[in-house]
Amino acid sequence: MDMEKVNSMDFGEFVDVFGNVVERCPLIAAAVWSQRPFSDLEDLEKHFFAFIDALPQSGQEGILRCHPDLAGRELQRGTLTAESQREQSGAGLTSLSADERLRLAELNAQYRARFGFPFVLAARLSDRAAVPRELARRLHCPPAQELRTALAEVKKIGHLRLADLLGVDPAGPQRPREPGAPDARRDARGPQPGAVRPGLEAVASLERRPHTRVKEGEN
Amino acid sequence: MDMEKVNSMDFGEFVDVFGNVVERCPLIAAAVWSQRPFSDLEDLEKHFFAFIDALPQSGQEGILRCHPDLAGRELQRGTLTAESQREQSGAGLTSLSADERLRLAELNAQYRARFGFPFVLAARLSDRAAVPRELARRLHCPPAQELRTALAEVKKIGHLRLADLLGVDPAGPQRPREPGAPDARRDARGPQPGAVRPGLEAVASLERRPHTRVKEGEN
Repeated sequence: MDMEKVNSMDFGEFVDVFGNVVERCPLIAAAVWSQRPFSDLEDLEKHFFAFIDALPQSGQEGILRCHPDLAGRELQRGTLTAESQREQSGAGLTSLSADERLRLAELNAQYRARFGFPFVLAARLSDRAAVPRELARRLHCPPAQELRTALAEVKKIGHLRLADLLGVDPAGPQRPREPGAPDARRDARGPQPGAVRPGLEAVASLERRPHTRVKEGEN
Repeated sequence: MDMEKVNSMDFGEFVDVFGNVVERCPLIAAAVWSQRPFSDLEDLEKHFFAFIDALPQSGQEGILRCHPDLAGRELQRGTLTAESQREQSGAGLTSLSADERLRLAELNAQYRARFGFPFVLAARLSDRAAVPRELARRLHCPPAQELRTALAEVKKIGHLRLADLLGVDPAGPQRPREPGAPDARRDARGPQPGAVRPGLEAVASLERRPHTRVKEGEN
C-alpha cells in the first residue's frame, strides 16, 4: 500500500486498516487521521507515537491494559486480535508445554500485581525461551522505568504492524542494514530457536535504553 | 452491581465490563481504572468525562470516529457493538423504510464530509423521526460548536451505559425528577413516536448548551 492510497482514505477506511496498530486502541488511529497527509512510514508512526507520549500516565497505562497477556487466557480461548495471534504464534508461544504455560501465567500474574498493567513485549523480536526470561527480569525494574520500557515495546509492535500494512521493510530506508555489517543483537544472542526474522533487527533502533536487551549472559 | 464490586475489580475485569462505556474506546476505561476507588456513578463517570475533556482536539475527534453511523452500514451488516445495537433498535432505527434509510445515509455522508467525524447522538433519548431532523439541523452548525455538541452526546451515551451496568436510575439520586415538575424537553417536543423512556429525561442535565435541543419549532 503506498502513501497516496493511505492519504486518500476516509476516516472509516483508515480506522479499519490502522485501528490495531496500537493493540485495541482504534481511538489512536482515529485521532492520527486528523494529521494527514503523511509522507512515509516514519511520518505516520511519528503521529501514533506522539499521541501515546502526550497522554497522561493513566492513559499510557490504559494503552498497556488493552494488551493481552503473552501465552495467556486469550490465546487459549482464541480471542486475540489477528495481529496478536500472529505475533504470539510466530514467537512459538502457541506451542508451549503445560509447564511453560504455567510458569508464564505465574510470572504474568506477578507482573500485573506489581505494575497494574500486563507484561507487553514485541513478541516478533523475541521467542519462547526469551519471553519468560525477559519477564522475570523486568518484574524487578522500578515502576517508572518499567512503564517507559513497556511503552517502548508498544512502539516497536506498532512499527512492525505499520510496516506490514504498508508492505515495507521495517528497517526502513532511513535505517539500512549495511551488508556485511556486524549485527550486534544477533551476535550477542547467539543462535536461538525461532531466531529473529531478517529485516527486523533495525527495529532495535527504536529502543532507547539497552536494559531491555538480553545482557545477563544467559545465552 | 454495587461500587464495592466495581472497586474490587482487577483491570481486566474492569475493561471487560466498562470497556464500551465510550464506544470502541476501551483505552478510556483502562485509564479510568487508575483512579479507583469510586464512590458512585457520578464519581465514576466524572473520570471518564475528564479523560475525554483532557484529550487534544484530534483525540476528541478520534473518539467520535470510533462511533458507527446511525442506521448505517454496520447496522445492516450486524457488526455493531451490543450496546449500539440495543440503542439503535430501541430508537426504531432497525425498522426504517428503504426511503428513510437512504435519506439518513445521505445526511450521514454529508455530515461526515463536513465535519470529519460521524453524526453521534444518544439514540436512547431520540427516535426514528427525530434522528434525521436533528441530523439535518446539526449539519449546519459551526464545526467548533458541533464538536462540543457531539462530545456532549458521547457523555450522555456513556452516562446511560454506566447507569445500566450499575443497575441504577440514570436520573441518579443527585438528579431527582420532581413529581409533577414540568418536563421541558418532553413538552417542547410534543407527542412523538417511540417517545423518551421514563427516567431518562434528567440526562438532559448533562447538557451544558441548550443549542443541541430542538428549538426551531420543527415540532
